[in-house]
This record gives sequence, structure tokens and C-alpha cells, in this order.
Amino acid sequence: MDKKDLQNMRHSLAHLLAAAVLELWPDTKTAIGPAIDNGFYYDFEFSKPLSDKDLSVIQKKMKKMLNTWDTFSEKKVSEKEAKDFFKDNPYKQELIDEIVSKKEDITLYTSGPPAGGFTDLCKGGHIEDMKKINADAFKLSHIAGAYWRGDENNTQLTRIYGLAFETKKDLDEYEKMLAEAKERDHRKLGKELGLFVFSDIVGKGLPLWTDKGATIRREVERFIVDEEIRRGYKHVRTPDMARIDLYKKSGHYPYYKDSMYTPMVIDEDEYMLRPMTCPHHFELYLSKPRSYRELPLRIAELAQLYRYEQSGELSGLMRVRSFCLADAHIICRDTTQAQEEVDGALDLIEYIAKVFGLNLGENYSYRLSLGNRDEEEKYFKDDNAWDVAEGILRNVLKKRRVPFVEAQNEASFYGPKIDIQMKNVLGKEDTAFTVQYDFVMPKRFELTFTDSDGKEKEPIVIHRSSVGAIERIMAFLIEHYAGSFPLWLSPTQVAVLPIAEDKHGEYAKEVYDALLKLGIRVEWMGESESLGKRIRQSKMQKIPYLVVIGDKEIEYKKITVEGRDNERHEYITMADFITLLENKIKNKK
Amino acid sequence: MDKKDLQNMRHSLAHLLAAAVLELWPDTKTAIGPAIDNGFYYDFEFSKPLSDKDLSVIQKKMKKMLNTWDTFSEKKVSEKEAKDFFKDNPYKQELIDEIVSKKEDITLYTSGPPAGGFTDLCKGGHIEDMKKINADAFKLSHIAGAYWRGDENNTQLTRIYGLAFETKKDLDEYEKMLAEAKERDHRKLGKELGLFVFSDIVGKGLPLWTDKGATIRREVERFIVDEEIRRGYKHVRTPDMARIDLYKKSGHYPYYKDSMYTPMVIDEDEYMLRPMTCPHHFELYLSKPRSYRELPLRIAELAQLYRYEQSGELSGLMRVRSFCLADAHIICRDTTQAQEEVDGALDLIEYIAKVFGLNLGENYSYRLSLGNRDEEEKYFKDDNAWDVAEGILRNVLKKRRVPFVEAQNEASFYGPKIDIQMKNVLGKEDTAFTVQYDFVMPKRFELTFTDSDGKEKEPIVIHRSSVGAIERIMAFLIEHYAGSFPLWLSPTQVAVLPIAEDKHGEYAKEVYDALLKLGIRVEWMGESESLGKRIRQSKMQKIPYLVVIGDKEIEYKKITVEGRDNERHEYITMADFITLLENKIKNKK
Repeated sequence: MDKKDLQNMRHSLAHLLAAAVLELWPDTKTAIGPAIDNGFYYDFEFSKPLSDKDLSVIQKKMKKMLNTWDTFSEKKVSEKEAKDFFKDNPYKQELIDEIVSKKEDITLYTSGPPAGGFTDLCKGGHIEDMKKINADAFKLSHIAGAYWRGDENNTQLTRIYGLAFETKKDLDEYEKMLAEAKERDHRKLGKELGLFVFSDIVGKGLPLWTDKGATIRREVERFIVDEEIRRGYKHVRTPDMARIDLYKKSGHYPYYKDSMYTPMVIDEDEYMLRPMTCPHHFELYLSKPRSYRELPLRIAELAQLYRYEQSGELSGLMRVRSFCLADAHIICRDTTQAQEEVDGALDLIEYIAKVFGLNLGENYSYRLSLGNRDEEEKYFKDDNAWDVAEGILRNVLKKRRVPFVEAQNEASFYGPKIDIQMKNVLGKEDTAFTVQYDFVMPKRFELTFTDSDGKEKEPIVIHRSSVGAIERIMAFLIEHYAGSFPLWLSPTQVAVLPIAEDKHGEYAKEVYDALLKLGIRVEWMGESESLGKRIRQSKMQKIPYLVVIGDKEIEYKKITVEGRDNERHEYITMADFITLLENKIKNKK
Repeated sequence: MDKKDLQNMRHSLAHLLAAAVLELWPDTKTAIGPAIDNGFYYDFEFSKPLSDKDLSVIQKKMKKMLNTWDTFSEKKVSEKEAKDFFKDNPYKQELIDEIVSKKEDITLYTSGPPAGGFTDLCKGGHIEDMKKINADAFKLSHIAGAYWRGDENNTQLTRIYGLAFETKKDLDEYEKMLAEAKERDHRKLGKELGLFVFSDIVGKGLPLWTDKGATIRREVERFIVDEEIRRGYKHVRTPDMARIDLYKKSGHYPYYKDSMYTPMVIDEDEYMLRPMTCPHHFELYLSKPRSYRELPLRIAELAQLYRYEQSGELSGLMRVRSFCLADAHIICRDTTQAQEEVDGALDLIEYIAKVFGLNLGENYSYRLSLGNRDEEEKYFKDDNAWDVAEGILRNVLKKRRVPFVEAQNEASFYGPKIDIQMKNVLGKEDTAFTVQYDFVMPKRFELTFTDSDGKEKEPIVIHRSSVGAIERIMAFLIEHYAGSFPLWLSPTQVAVLPIAEDKHGEYAKEVYDALLKLGIRVEWMGESESLGKRIRQSKMQKIPYLVVIGDKEIEYKKITVEGRDNERHEYITMADFITLLENKIKNKK
């Protein structure tokens, strides 16, 4: 089956779902039921609340009815015929009105036995023969509330979701992947591992990081800052807020005002929490005269930004209302420098990703986002600048010999960009962050530098992130590692466990203190719980190394280390264990 | 002269100042003229603007008149007599009304020759004989605008300041200290060394840190965080903003609302930028059930806080509108733990201060701030809790055998505190941060823990900072070091300077790269400027080490290092230099 066939099959199953529901509860009102990725859904208005238990009843009915269905027959009808046919169904009435207003044909599709067949308002796109559907390769998965037409002012309907594949094997594999993704969900793991929490009274979309979560963040942040500095970035610190005038000057205000928080009045001025860093960095650039000798100037910051997200869009750490962006603005002398700097930014991105075990092509990919010369409202008018900039970005990607796709009409207002598209554990791709070419902001802010010929010239600005928002990369890393963080990132790196505290406590304490003194993040697992429970806890917390101290260890003056991943070192010296730890941490393993 | 005599002399000089001004410009209106620290001032309403140049004219006149003055004579007068005497002076009229309303005596004091003596409304407190004043030991220092009675709705007067001491030597020393303090002023040095800037369009009181300033901050912040973690603090990250309800729940809102920024409306809720960290840390504490085994729990954070300051109060980094507090809340099981934790907090404070070269007794001191049992509006009512808490804090200070003063009526609402009083370069003392004992917040937030007997109990909270606000300690350190930061904090640690780039550039670049690779903050001083200018720049930027590469260095395969403080190492090996650098940095020198 190709993609089109699969979609037709899934759509046909949505009809079957509606037919089964109406057989069971004839007073139900049907709304719409399309095919979606991996399956289908149908929205209903039930006269009584539906429960998860009812799903298996409906599914059974679907499978039974499937035997009696074969092809779909089409019938073109008039507006009156259609409206009469669906006379008690306000949703279909609305859909008919819409078809009429668009001057399109109204078609009904029917399938099932002559007595008891099911007819729906539909535009077609079905499987040739329902007999081709494998009854073991589809199932109803879950129900959810859904507003009619997605508008929360409308009636809330009940949406029944189904999964559907060509073979049972495909379905099983998909379900296995789903289960695994659920296990890796950063919201679930964040709770289990105690990394972050939310609080109603603090507010939605504002995570509170426990010391464990904050430890991972700190390691990630210091790594990024140190690596950027090593590569010649100048890390600065600018305020989280500014007068509204700053964002008006930058031209961001009209584009961002709906996602900015309402202004705060201080003395006679209105202040806003910043939704982006650029104008702050430009003000720093403007604080003194600049020479070509200083360029390229890579102004970087871990910048806390504030953007409104609708409460329905908030999701764990993936979508929050305030986030910390690993941001930078590279002020370039000319197009040559701009090209080098874009190239250098991609070097950095690939290096950091690699340290996190993420590979280009597998975990993430590049997309070149282009502007549309004709859309003068959306894109700054300067055809030549667009040509040059797009050429430069394309050149960099080609020279690096990496695969990339081009996307029309996805650029920023001020220039084209390279999007870093991250794949999540379900394989879904999303723009995580970008490298942008900007030929507009330098004009607006009147950024200049004195060139070697003594003339004042306008630089080019590259906006770039190296890893995106810290909150989002944390969510991504939690899922990527399934909570089993490498040693250098683990909130607890070693747990020390005396089998019996009275006999082994003293020696265990020596081991604990020695590790602590070296700056290893070590946890004491004293005898307040049983041995089995302590070992289980250490596994559940995914602690990389467990040092177990018993009689033999004291006798030999050695230690036994159990690694999280079936690694075991019986009776090794502390010196050897410390070397092992220090090497791994140093190499970010 | 004792303090009282000095004050009387200064007050007498204020009379002389007023007399001299009236001799020079008889239509001037006099307001008030008290003694102040180090001198005196007098406020006048001039009929024409006064310039700095006029000061020497007035001073000359004062010195001349001084010869003709001796004692002050007192005269008690009626309200009518007084009002007639000052009939053209609205300020004196107002002062007379005030004296009358307080039912106090109205007294006039006169000094100077019988013809041309000067009479002022005054409560006394003069030198016995003006002849005792050394004419070389006082001088007029500057003028400033000052509103009548400090109220900006009133007339703006001209205030003339004078310095006055017993001897010329005292005056000279004070002026020398002033000049030095001016040289060390962090606003001046911040500009010269390029550490931070302000921008009008960003807003007042919101510093932008350049990479140089941000480098020092980063070193300071990492040092504090690492040291706190080493001492068992759990560093967390909580949001900069929260629903207004959080601050109402904590009880902070009524006390802080005037210094909080106006609310932002998000969906149906009002959000505020946080002015303190406590309720955020309490929400984290409440996120799971707690056992006595977890206590003491030291929740720490470098927390960005937002408090309104009047624009007139803003001063460089000392007073800003958003600052980052090295904050912590220690949840204690009982009074024993609370005492230990306060003691531990002072250990940490003294350790950090020592690393910065600040000594207890010399650069800072302790003050025990107590509550007043009778002021029930200002202090939480629980006499016994106050007695216990104050006893504990006093105990800790006594056991440490450190000098401290006690201050009545300076406690927090929720308990007594130890204030860390920092002395600035002028010797002025200010509360930099505090260690507070809190028996109120645990009740409000219903903080509890399960004790060893299985019962739910209420903990005690210690609020503490280890170093105060980062912005303020940065201002303090800039002035303390006069910009010559120790190696570990220096934004540029080493400058590499080839005498002639064509001959010495290659070898110099090897040296530069070797240092860079080791993570040393190294600056290239190429030949774009003359040798002399480059050396001067390196001194002006207070770079700790300058590596000079010439013929001999290349011949010997060695380097010559010039230290900032007259330290010179001629022809040393790179290995020796690197050892020197690494030892200093490791030991925070």
C-alpha cells in the first residue's frame, strides 16, 4: 500500500467507526471524521458521556460490520436533499452551507449492506474494497474532547481516535514505539527522577527546577558557555527587560506584540519583558565606536526570554512561558566574513550535538528557509540582498556536503535562515533553532564600523543559537537519554551503599568523603531502607555507579562498583575508580 | 577636639558661610545650615544663579570675616519679634511656625562685630570662640541643588557644602581619601575598563555587561555556586515571575507592593516580577512530602529579583532596578539545627569574603537586629519565639568571639537577623545582606516534615545570602581592587605583545595559542599601535601579565613577563609561566 492507499483506508475506517457508533447509539450526532497520521478519528455529539470502556464495544461492532462492507457508492445531491437527509444534525447542516457557499458539489457516500448501510456527507477518497482491510491491523486507541471546528466557543464534542496500518506487524511496531515514547516522555521522567515541578500558584508554563534538574542544566549551560568562549564568542549579560521604545526601534514590536507580556509602568515609561535578545546586543555594540579590527564580533548570551503561549499549547518543558536561549549575534565586516561565520556556527552546532550523542541526518537535519520577493509585507524589500544572502547560506550547506531541504516562504522578515530541524522520539520533526542572515537590523540600529580605509560602513549580522532554548534541549535530552544521563550530566554520579551500616558504615563514609572532596556528586544510601530497596532506588534513579561496601571490601581495602548498564567492577581500588570517573567526566561521557 | 566640639565648629562655620553670602549678595534668602559629617552646608535662595567660580569668592570673604568673629550671643524672642526680624524670608517664617507649634523657645544667635554682625534663627551648639578655628582647615567644596525640606514640590534651593576639620592635616588627608575614592569609583572604573554600560532606550538602573564585565561576574558566580554546593547547598532554578497570589499567600505583598513592578495580565491572571525568592523556594519544598532525614535542607539560587528604586536613588551598580541575589533558604528541623545553620552561614560568608581579600572587623562587621515586642504591626506577635530566636543569633555571634553591635527595631517582620555591614572606600557602612531567622513563613506556607516519631512538625527557616546581590558585590569589588582584579577574576589575564610583528609575530602567536588552549584569557597586542602605546594600554587596562616577545626571547626560546605590580620575569620558560598562572588561578589569587 502506498501513502495514498493508506490514507484512503484510514478514511474508510472513519466511516465504519461512525456507522458502528450509530448502530450502538442511534441518537448520536456525527460531525467530521478524517484520516490522520497513523490512523483516523471521528467527532461525535453523544447523548450520554462515553467512557474508555465503550471503546472495546465499538471496536467489536466495527470488526463485525466490516464483514458486511465492500465498496463505497457515490451520489451527487441537491442542497435540499442533503439538508433533508441530515435534518437533525446541525454539524452537517453547517458543512452543507459551507459547500454551497463555495459552489462545490454535494456528495454522499454509502457503504455496507443494502439494509443497514451507512451514508455520510463526504468528498470521497476511500479504499476500493473494505474486504482488503486487515481487521487485526486497526484498533481504537483513545477518546478526547474536541471543540467543533477547534473553536472553544463552540460545543465540545467527543473525538474517538483509531490506529490503522496495512499489517498487524506495522500496528504492533507502532504501538511499541508509542509505549517507548511514553516511557521516555520528559514530563513523566521529570517527575519520576525529580528534575522539575510546576506549581499552580506560581503559574502555568513556569517550571521550578529542583536541585537535580538544576544540576543537569548547570552542566549543560557551563559546557555551552565554555565551548563558545573557546571559539571566540564574547559572553555578555543584558537586562531581561527594557523600555517599549527599544522594541519599537528594532521593528520587532508589531510582529511580537501579541506574544509579549503586557507592559509594566515604571515612572513615566512602559517596560516590557524581552521576547528576543537582538536589540539588547545592538545597544551594547553601539556603546562605543567600532573598528574593522574587532570584527567579526560574536556577542553571545544565555538570555532569558519571555513569550506568551496559549495555555493549551504549553507542554512540559517543550513549550514554556519563559525560556533561556543560547543566543548570539555575530557582527560581520562583509559577506566573506558572514559566510565564514555561518559555517563556524554550524561547526559549533554539530560539535555540541555530537557531545550529546545527536547526529546530523539521524537526530536532526538542516532546512534552508527562503523569502518570497513578492511578499513585501512579510519580507524586507531588497531583491539583491536576498539573492546574495540566500546564495551564501546555500553555499555553506553545499560546501559542507550535508543534505538539506529548501523551504519557500519560511524566512525571517530580515533575511533567509538555516533551520535546525530536530526529530523527537516519535520521529516528529520541528524547528528547534536557527542561524539567520540579517541585512535589515544594521540599518535600523545604524550599526557601523570604521573600515581599514577609514570609512564608516554597515556590517552584516548573523543571528544564531548553538543549541536553542535550554528548557527545550533539556526536554529533548531527557527523552533522548530516557533519563539515563551520561556521567558528566547525572545529578547524582555515584551512590555509596554500606550493606550493614554498623559494620561497613565507617569505611563507606571514607569512600563517600573522598569522592565528595573531588567534587563528584555522590549520594549516601544509608541503612534507613532494606538493601534490596536501596539497590532498586539507585536503579530507578538511574544513578550511573553504585559503590557497595561489605565485609570483603573492608578486608581487601577495595570497593565493588556496580554500573547502571550491567558494568561491574569487583574489588577495585579507589584510585582506579576515581581515574575511571575523572576520565569519563573530562570526556563528557 | 572631640566629636561634639567638631560638630559645634562645623555648625558655627555654617553661620559664617551665611553671613559671607549675605555680605556679597544681600538679597539672598537663607534657609537652613547644619553641621554634617566632615563639614557643613547652608541652603540659600539666590536671586541669580550661583557658579562654582563664586565659591572661592565666598570662601575668601569667610576667611576675612573670621578674623572679626569671636563668641555667639543668644537671645530669646517672641513669635512676633522673630517674624518681624525675618519678615522677607518665607523659610524662616515656616521654621518659626514650627517652633511655635511645638511650644519651644525661639532663639536667635549673633556673632561678628557689633556693626555688621550676623544673626540667625538657631537652637545653639556653637564653638566657644571662633578664634579657635584654623582658617586653613576648612574650605567650600561644591554646590548642589536641594529642595526646601527635601520635597520635590517645593522650591529648589542652592546648597553650598563645606569641609571642616581641626587641622589642615586632617583636611588634606580627607581630601586625599576623597580623591582616591573618586579614582576607585566603580562607575568611573567600569567605564575606563569597559565592564558595563547603561543605555537610555533600555532604561535606567538596568546595566548591560560587556564581555569583560560578564567574565568577572561569571567567575564570581561560579565560585559562589561551587563553594555553596561543596557545603551542602542544593542549587535550584525558579521562575523570575509568578501569579500575584503567591506574594499574597506569603504575606509579602502589602510590604513590597510599592517596590514591585506593575502586574502583567496573562490570560485571566495577574503576574508580577518577583521581588524576593522565598515563596518560590517554599513552593519547591511543598512539591513533595518531606522527612526529617532531608533536614537541614539548604535550597539555594542565584535569583534574579526586581525592585523599583526611585530614579534619584539609582547609582551605578550599587542601586539597580533588577539584581541577582545569592540567596538561600535553609529548612531546619529544630532550634539546634537553626543555630548550627546560622553558624555555618557565617562560616561561608567569612570564607567568601576572605577570598575577595575582605576581613571581618576591617571591611565588614556584624549587627544583630532585634524586634520590638510592643510594635505588633511591624513585628509578628509571638514573644516567646522572638526571645528564643534572638537568643540563638546572639549565642552564635558570642560563640564565634566576633565583635557585633545590637540594633533595636531593625528586625524583619518574621524574626530577628544578623546584618552584614559593609564599609565602602569612604568608610561609610551599609547593610549589604543578612542572615534571618524566620518563625512565621513556615506557618503561612504550611511547611511541614515528618519527624522521626512519625509526627508532622513545623520547621524553622533561615533566610540568608552569602555575598548579597551580585551587582552590588561587583561594584564593591571594583572599588576594593581599584580595578586591578586578581588574576583569577581578571577579564584579560595575559596580553601577548610582539615588539615587531614581522620578526616576532610567529613566535608570539605560538605563545598566544598555547595560553589560549589552556583556557587562559589572553589578548593579542599586535603592531597596530606603537610599542609605547601598547604597553600603556596594557597598564591602563590593568592586565596582570604582559608577555613581551623580542629578539632575545626567540633566540633563547623563552619569554619575558612583566607583571602589573612591578613583578618582572626575564627569559623564563613557558612551562614556568604556565605553572605560575595555574597556581595563582587555582588558589584564587
